[in-house]
Amino acid sequence: MPVDPRFFEPLCQPTLGQLAELTGAQFDGDASAVVTGLAAADAAKPGDICFHDGDAASAASVSSNAVACFVKSGIAGHLPEGVAGLEVKFPRLAHAMAGDMMFRARGWFEDDDGESPSIDPTTRLAPGVVIAAGVAIGKRTTIGPNTVIGPGVQIGRDCIIGANVSIQCALIGNSVKINSGSRIGETGFGVMSGPDGAEDAPQYGRVILQDFVSIGANTCVDRGAFDDTILGERTKVDNLCQIAHNVVTGRSVLMASFAGISGSVTIGDGAMLGGRVGIADHVKVGAGTLLAASAGVFRTVPDGETWGGTPAKPLRQWMRELAWVQKQVAPKSKAKS
Amino acid sequence: MPVDPRFFEPLCQPTLGQLAELTGAQFDGDASAVVTGLAAADAAKPGDICFHDGDAASAASVSSNAVACFVKSGIAGHLPEGVAGLEVKFPRLAHAMAGDMMFRARGWFEDDDGESPSIDPTTRLAPGVVIAAGVAIGKRTTIGPNTVIGPGVQIGRDCIIGANVSIQCALIGNSVKINSGSRIGETGFGVMSGPDGAEDAPQYGRVILQDFVSIGANTCVDRGAFDDTILGERTKVDNLCQIAHNVVTGRSVLMASFAGISGSVTIGDGAMLGGRVGIADHVKVGAGTLLAASAGVFRTVPDGETWGGTPAKPLRQWMRELAWVQKQVAPKSKAKS
Amino acid sequence: MPVDPRFFEPLCQPTLGQLAELTGAQFDGDASAVVTGLAAADAAKPGDICFHDGDAASAASVSSNAVACFVKSGIAGHLPEGVAGLEVKFPRLAHAMAGDMMFRARGWFEDDDGESPSIDPTTRLAPGVVIAAGVAIGKRTTIGPNTVIGPGVQIGRDCIIGANVSIQCALIGNSVKINSGSRIGETGFGVMSGPDGAEDAPQYGRVILQDFVSIGANTCVDRGAFDDTILGERTKVDNLCQIAHNVVTGRSVLMASFAGISGSVTIGDGAMLGGRVGIADHVKVGAGTLLAASAGVFRTVPDGETWGGTPAKPLRQWMRELAWVQKQVAPKSKAKS
Repeated sequence: MPVDPRFFEPLCQPTLGQLAELTGAQFDGDASAVVTGLAAADAAKPGDICFHDGDAASAASVSSNAVACFVKSGIAGHLPEGVAGLEVKFPRLAHAMAGDMMFRARGWFEDDDGESPSIDPTTRLAPGVVIAAGVAIGKRTTIGPNTVIGPGVQIGRDCIIGANVSIQCALIGNSVKINSGSRIGETGFGVMSGPDGAEDAPQYGRVILQDFVSIGANTCVDRGAFDDTILGERTKVDNLCQIAHNVVTGRSVLMASFAGISGSVTIGDGAMLGGRVGIADHVKVGAGTLLAASAGVFRTVPDGETWGGTPAKPLRQWMRELAWVQKQVAPKSKAKS
Repeated sequence: MPVDPRFFEPLCQPTLGQLAELTGAQFDGDASAVVTGLAAADAAKPGDICFHDGDAASAASVSSNAVACFVKSGIAGHLPEGVAGLEVKFPRLAHAMAGDMMFRARGWFEDDDGESPSIDPTTRLAPGVVIAAGVAIGKRTTIGPNTVIGPGVQIGRDCIIGANVSIQCALIGNSVKINSGSRIGETGFGVMSGPDGAEDAPQYGRVILQDFVSIGANTCVDRGAFDDTILGERTKVDNLCQIAHNVVTGRSVLMASFAGISGSVTIGDGAMLGGRVGIADHVKVGAGTLLAASAGVFRTVPDGETWGGTPAKPLRQWMRELAWVQKQVAPKSKAKS
Repeated sequence: MPVDPRFFEPLCQPTLGQLAELTGAQFDGDASAVVTGLAAADAAKPGDICFHDGDAASAASVSSNAVACFVKSGIAGHLPEGVAGLEVKFPRLAHAMAGDMMFRARGWFEDDDGESPSIDPTTRLAPGVVIAAGVAIGKRTTIGPNTVIGPGVQIGRDCIIGANVSIQCALIGNSVKINSGSRIGETGFGVMSGPDGAEDAPQYGRVILQDFVSIGANTCVDRGAFDDTILGERTKVDNLCQIAHNVVTGRSVLMASFAGISGSVTIGDGAMLGGRVGIADHVKVGAGTLLAASAGVFRTVPDGETWGGTPAKPLRQWMRELAWVQKQVAPKSKAKS
């Protein structure tokens, strides 16, 4: 997914030589090769630069489309053929430095250059709404008081956006509803190592809310790191949920309050999550699954199954285990009955 | 509870004939009977129309006061005598269509007709506050910056409302405190089926915060679906809690952070909830109960008891079970000691 | 820690005689002794008045520096020598009454006296930002739309503050990042008893965010009750976390979403908390610890250990217990395999 210029202003297309100089990388490839984009290691397209924080063995999994990849010392030779390796101490940090050279997040501020917003005459903006440059909003959409729409955000028709909402780096379909206080498109929680300790990893992706998605109050949907966070059509999310970067849900997924969906989770069509369900990063939850309230899911849930508990397992199994322990421990007089 | 005209503008009082035509319902009763209100099936008053999504056997539980009830095909004959049945494929959706015909949520917008706000001269409004039509605010109440008070909201005296709060469809007593970023009166999480998949169920109720209630920061208290969500006098709620539609608490209930109170839960006077307690919908929690941090409550907790665990049970029983399992599994050298 | 006059305006320095009259306390010490500050019982400095809600035996733990202490009837004689006892029915409530007499929280309102804000010319304030009296903001810091900065707040250079944020009673270092909708410096959740039931305990402390701290979206960091809530350098906090009053973290502590850190918890350098970790009040979590997602921590975690489960224990022990129960309960055919 190329970095979307509506949200990040392209500044330059550096050569590998320039990036090696910027980051102090060891590099002996074609210094004149041009980098046109940023990507994650498994999704790089031609012209993209990516990073690989892992070891030599896993370096083969880097996309062979990438023009170059930041790696640790001694790893460059293990990259796929055609991918130049730039060796540095902190590959992800070096990649972030490249990102800062190549792109600049479009800002909230009036003197940022950018197109004027395109607001349909039937759109209704309540008092205190702030609309940044490059925004487009469709017919009959209403935006509640003191809500903030960041640069380049696209919102469809017949949407209802509540009060005190903020939206950035997002493409929002038709008939989407976002209740008050929700945060769409913030930077996800990515921490990378640097010479001074923990650093925030940059987040260049987007949020896509498809048609008829509803988002409760004070919920957060973070934008992707490089790719997109996508909520499928008619996905309905309750209050105070957290949907991390690169999550992808299918159609009509339902999430009750306090759902915590970690990075890169995928959830199939029609899955139903009870309150306070947590799902660990990169886990796949199948279509038509039911996750009982409070479930903590750490591995794949097959289509159509009902799971519960922490770590989650099939609900009947969990219930049997709970009942068995209870029976073992019950006072004898009760155990007899 | 009739729909409150301060929050929802009455548009018309349709006949059953008009509603049958609107929703395509099968209906052979008195087409000239007039519908004056909307209600849940168990709480309908004379003139109300309600819906019943269940089967024939449970149709008898529909309030016999209702003038009519949307039901599925073949169910009309099982309703209590005097309740007209309108048979449709999606009863709740048909009821929502009736609601859209009968009422319109009062909006944030300046051209909405409505009474001017009534703000006491001793009320202090910080910069950026947005006050909609029909609002009344009592003596010495202070409203923090960029807070939004929706149409028709009533707020008593000596209240302290923080910054970036939003309040809708709510009646707020005296000496109530609401910290920054909280969301009072948003639509609850109700999902109904329609021909295209999941739809948001409408929410016509209110939030009532009685005197001396305190609400932490970024907490959500949803309005009722048809009846009210009520927090009793001196109930104290921490940050980031979720209180769903139709919850009713007694006096001096304490809830620590991340409390998740599902729809229609009732909690008795003086109950104390530790952090991250979840309570499943329609559960009754007795007066004077203690719920340990992280408890997940799925059934009635009798008055005065202390429960913990997920699913929650009496705390001592849970502790015994935990200790027993630990003892069975402990390394032998430790087991001897 | 003296009450910070940037956040609370000093009103008077009462004598013990005046405070006894105000609160109706029984008192037979030096009525002319002057009270200059408020403190918790274990941290009182000369001139401070504190409170002790406990019994005679624990009264000896009150700091002997305090000039006086509100206690229950019959406890005054058990205080350390030199600490005057003011006997009342509700010691904490009496202390709060003394606080109301001595200090007044600086307000949002234009007619509050206070110094003009000191904003560096390179600071960028987006539309709708509200800045109270006495605020100072450093070079190149950006403040997003509709964000609110309360009286006396100090913010360093190169910070990035998102949209719809509110900040009160806080000192914020350099290169701090706060995502949209977060609440910094709200009153913590402290409930005290009074003659009419639960009362909110006042909160006179501050929040200190050290350099390079990052805070996610819709997260809450409450100010201390009397001392400070402190997040150490490079501590990184995800969305929708709750950090209660008087929490102190070390450097580079990482907290994933829904962390719930109760009052007075301390967390050592480099600790990593998975999603939805809860820590009970006053618990110490060591440096370099790992807490697995969903852990509920109720006791000290030694440095460098990895814990999980609720109540949390060493992760391997928890895993062994889970596996053992599962094995006992597995269907026989599976148990054989």
